[in-house]
Amino acid sequence: MKGFTSMTSPVLPSHGRVRPLGLAQVSLTGGFWGERQAVNAAQTLAHCETWMERLGWLANFDRVADGTTGPDRPGWSFSDSEVYKLLEALSWEVARSGDAEAEAAIKRLTARVARAQDQDGYLNTCFGHGDQPPRYSDLEMGHELYNTGHLLQAAVARLRTAGEDDLVRVARRAADHVCRTFGPGGTAAICGHPEIEVGMAEFGRATGEQRYVEQARLFLDRRGHGTLRDIPLGRAYFQDDVPIREADVWRGHAVRALYLAAAAVDVAVELGDDDLLRAIERQWERTVARRTYVTGGMGSRHQDEGFGEDWELPPDRAYCETCAGVASIMVSWRLYLATGDVRYADLIERTLYNVVAVSPSTDGRAFFYANPLHQRVAGRPADQDEVSPRAEAGVRAPWFDVSCCPTNVARTLAGLHGYLATTDDDGLQIHQYASCSVRAELPGGQPVAVDVETAYPQAGTVRVRIAADADTPWTLTLRVPAWADGATLTEGGQTRPVRPGPAQVRRAFRAGEEIVLELPMQPRLTWPDPRIDAVRGCVAVERGPEVLCVESNDLPSPDLLESLVLDPGSAPRAAEGAVLVRGRALDLADRPWAYPAGPLDEQGDDDWFDVPLRPYHGWARRGPSSMRIFVPVAPQERTGA
Amino acid sequence: MKGFTSMTSPVLPSHGRVRPLGLAQVSLTGGFWGERQAVNAAQTLAHCETWMERLGWLANFDRVADGTTGPDRPGWSFSDSEVYKLLEALSWEVARSGDAEAEAAIKRLTARVARAQDQDGYLNTCFGHGDQPPRYSDLEMGHELYNTGHLLQAAVARLRTAGEDDLVRVARRAADHVCRTFGPGGTAAICGHPEIEVGMAEFGRATGEQRYVEQARLFLDRRGHGTLRDIPLGRAYFQDDVPIREADVWRGHAVRALYLAAAAVDVAVELGDDDLLRAIERQWERTVARRTYVTGGMGSRHQDEGFGEDWELPPDRAYCETCAGVASIMVSWRLYLATGDVRYADLIERTLYNVVAVSPSTDGRAFFYANPLHQRVAGRPADQDEVSPRAEAGVRAPWFDVSCCPTNVARTLAGLHGYLATTDDDGLQIHQYASCSVRAELPGGQPVAVDVETAYPQAGTVRVRIAADADTPWTLTLRVPAWADGATLTEGGQTRPVRPGPAQVRRAFRAGEEIVLELPMQPRLTWPDPRIDAVRGCVAVERGPEVLCVESNDLPSPDLLESLVLDPGSAPRAAEGAVLVRGRALDLADRPWAYPAGPLDEQGDDDWFDVPLRPYHGWARRGPSSMRIFVPVAPQERTGA
Repeated sequence: MKGFTSMTSPVLPSHGRVRPLGLAQVSLTGGFWGERQAVNAAQTLAHCETWMERLGWLANFDRVADGTTGPDRPGWSFSDSEVYKLLEALSWEVARSGDAEAEAAIKRLTARVARAQDQDGYLNTCFGHGDQPPRYSDLEMGHELYNTGHLLQAAVARLRTAGEDDLVRVARRAADHVCRTFGPGGTAAICGHPEIEVGMAEFGRATGEQRYVEQARLFLDRRGHGTLRDIPLGRAYFQDDVPIREADVWRGHAVRALYLAAAAVDVAVELGDDDLLRAIERQWERTVARRTYVTGGMGSRHQDEGFGEDWELPPDRAYCETCAGVASIMVSWRLYLATGDVRYADLIERTLYNVVAVSPSTDGRAFFYANPLHQRVAGRPADQDEVSPRAEAGVRAPWFDVSCCPTNVARTLAGLHGYLATTDDDGLQIHQYASCSVRAELPGGQPVAVDVETAYPQAGTVRVRIAADADTPWTLTLRVPAWADGATLTEGGQTRPVRPGPAQVRRAFRAGEEIVLELPMQPRLTWPDPRIDAVRGCVAVERGPEVLCVESNDLPSPDLLESLVLDPGSAPRAAEGAVLVRGRALDLADRPWAYPAGPLDEQGDDDWFDVPLRPYHGWARRGPSSMRIFVPVAPQERTGA
Repeated sequence: MKGFTSMTSPVLPSHGRVRPLGLAQVSLTGGFWGERQAVNAAQTLAHCETWMERLGWLANFDRVADGTTGPDRPGWSFSDSEVYKLLEALSWEVARSGDAEAEAAIKRLTARVARAQDQDGYLNTCFGHGDQPPRYSDLEMGHELYNTGHLLQAAVARLRTAGEDDLVRVARRAADHVCRTFGPGGTAAICGHPEIEVGMAEFGRATGEQRYVEQARLFLDRRGHGTLRDIPLGRAYFQDDVPIREADVWRGHAVRALYLAAAAVDVAVELGDDDLLRAIERQWERTVARRTYVTGGMGSRHQDEGFGEDWELPPDRAYCETCAGVASIMVSWRLYLATGDVRYADLIERTLYNVVAVSPSTDGRAFFYANPLHQRVAGRPADQDEVSPRAEAGVRAPWFDVSCCPTNVARTLAGLHGYLATTDDDGLQIHQYASCSVRAELPGGQPVAVDVETAYPQAGTVRVRIAADADTPWTLTLRVPAWADGATLTEGGQTRPVRPGPAQVRRAFRAGEEIVLELPMQPRLTWPDPRIDAVRGCVAVERGPEVLCVESNDLPSPDLLESLVLDPGSAPRAAEGAVLVRGRALDLADRPWAYPAGPLDEQGDDDWFDVPLRPYHGWARRGPSSMRIFVPVAPQERTGA
């Protein structure tokens, strides 16, 4: 497959099983994601800039330029990266909508960033100036190369959507500085937080400079040999415990592990390193099978924001950082482009609806950082004018002391239409269902133009209308999600069942023709693997791509959530904007000791009622609540017999 | 009840329902605890001094004295406290055995500590000297008053066992400095880590200086009003969120919460503050009912070494810090002395066997810091010559970067005989069963002398032999543990059933008489409250005071632990040094996604076998292993029907 580097997309491999569409070739036209993208554009981008100005994270660049920075510099060592992630988001937004305010913001921010760059290309507001610690004196936790990686990703967005400008020039100088300092013959070091690798690889693709890809490979190969100093959390925290080609599973800090894996796919594809690609696929498989929540969330532990052991998936202290959801999508998208295997698109869908969509408030001005599957105690209303000092869930906060998630949501939503569909030499593949318009072209010049109309995930009907006559046959491929048992495809007046996986229609389509995918939206019970100890004896309820939850404010009494059990023998049914499942409360007496001899009588009275469940991404939008996704099964039903 | 401040005991309230025996009045004569106390004396004390010398924690005192300390000072800000806890342990040991080496160590350490004291009584190696931060410039995390609190506890031990010496004089000056600095009219501040309160209160008792008790009360009353700065973990971390009289439950960092509660009991008793005492009893009740592990362990979270919410008791990432076990015993012992309620002695027994006894290695030279109830992956053998950088369990480590646990174990074991029995005006109460000798006297001069012989907890027979004729009747009270259903008491040729709680025999005993308590040692199944989500569908097995566990190296294949289920319908039985319960392995296929639609077939084949369980305190003593206390019940048996 030939190159297509002139296109506008966050990820543009030089080859692969399928290729992404440029962001100009597809647009969201409303619906679930269209609305969220609009709120992101109208609210979140400005919100992020306002907070970074208020907290001095932007002024940090001015102070470096003016020579006035010092030990009182506000923000963590990675606050520069938030500015870069916002620049990336703004770049995708300008390309999407041509918004003049976003364009002005790019120029405004770029000017301040550019002034802070040292003569030799080094650019960082936390090290190397005035009384600050010297450059690269804390590679373990200093995040210098991490910041640079995000600068490169921002520059990729700008280069692909607006061409060479000041931001791109700043990034080139920064990248060259990194290559001189850490390239062959330079310091054989790595950064404690992977990100430079994925930034370098894509910057290499966008600029056509192979040496940047080579630098990414160097960083990858140096990792896993105890290159960094040990820390109390151990070297697995930053994936410096095992070489990436030898690892079997992701471990340690989830965002670190996933950014690194994304880079590894890029490098594997660009350098034709099939062994490396297989290694990442193998790690994906075990991690998804044993270390991933039903929401797609990754990261079981608060202590290190990290993966747990296999099957260590506690719902109540699940970390499931929003950024790890974004990073997981980055990995799966790259693996999908390389292999064309729809399992990666399945996980992207799950993660989009049940991690990414959970985070932002309806007005786009507050966010969840952690996304647990069980909230035991309702949060307290967050002050919308205060920085949240911590990553607890319960209520969405406008900004965080560590505020990586808002800008990560922003850049993902701004370019989300790029993840809906791909092409190959033979046709168009649609992966994510949203009302959208696709205007693409196959390599031979054959136009592939479709309009998708759907109320998904509210309803399961997806109408794909052909918008241009074809001269020759091409193949339309629709992903039937793994959960969709009983889907049908209607085309040419015929309806046929389609199984999970790729469903294909091939012919010389005519404009106006409609292909209709009907996905089964009846709610379903989901039973966890018995090795997930923390949810033994529980079920979850899902509907389409959405994981549902019970919220305390939907119950007759909020305290009832603690003793609620469901009857899995009764089919869940949709009604009144919710899914209803038969349930009741156990009658649990208070006792002085929680570990009696003999099972407790859990029967209580037989007062069954309809328990409403709603999409997890909608929780805590009606005021603070307690919540759970996995609900215990009534004792007599626990075996599912 | 009149005062008895001349006695030797770690805790000597001026009044209370019962009074502790002096450490000279009771001695362990072998058995489970006698062996551990002997290993502690022969190995652990010297081990601790050696490590603190090696790491420079002792030299920190010399460097202050010599004016050579600086920013390169090794150790955390609380490393001084380890020296003081060792001094406390050594003091109890000298009183117990008269060991000349321990006495020499006390003099050696005291001389070095004393040289570091400033003219005005301030004594700390981390603040206020040379380039160090100023005194009391980081009350949240600096641990200055915490260190002083441990110095006072060490001085109490020395004052009560050897009289006024240099250590006591150093402590007096330090305590006076604290009172001048933080007393009425001084700075209205508190320390981020409670400990000064319990140290001050007992030092006040030991010296007869009421103003020290008053200072403890001042510190207690200042807490809970946002007196400390907020931190990312929140003010609950150091119990500065709610005033101690208003709190309903323990929360935040477990050791902090428990040291504070211990001090509150001391202050309540000394100042006759019944409301405060009731508050601590109420907090104990809810914490024990809802936030305590079956082991007695406290602290559910690694992130903040803290309590979780009610019912948040994950077995696999249970923190259950050894120090929190020690601190829990401190609180329960004080509550027992104040109230005479045996529920406190019940919890002490549980915590001694299933937290404190778990920590030290058999040779007394390595320790567990965290004591989880489920270890998913066997630890790697620890280098016995290396400091462990982290508090993970799996293998016992010789020393830790944060090494609070070894010295806390040492001081507890050195004075453990003080927790076995108490007296009141009417007689003797025995709480913990161990081979021991008691030679005490009631207030009227009536001698109460008994010798206890028992192989407990290996066997359930406890023989109490009277060692002195009585002129008048007195009451012997034996605690029948809460778990002991079916105990009997034999005395005067008669055997009668006794229920959990105090079992009493009253008469004018004659030397040679024997009272025999027979405790039921058949193993029993224990079912967790259904609100403890993390162990739903599981049972634990207990035998006497010991919680048992399954270790991978007792199974036909180590991996089998992951799929093991027990049949609770089959009675557990003791055999071959273990308890056997019928169990089998589920036949669990690997799947790409762990959340299928419909319950998995967990039946597998019907290949039942005897699963051996052994005391939890013995785990990981035969090499690294995976382990679990709560084991899933076979699906068809899960309801216990």
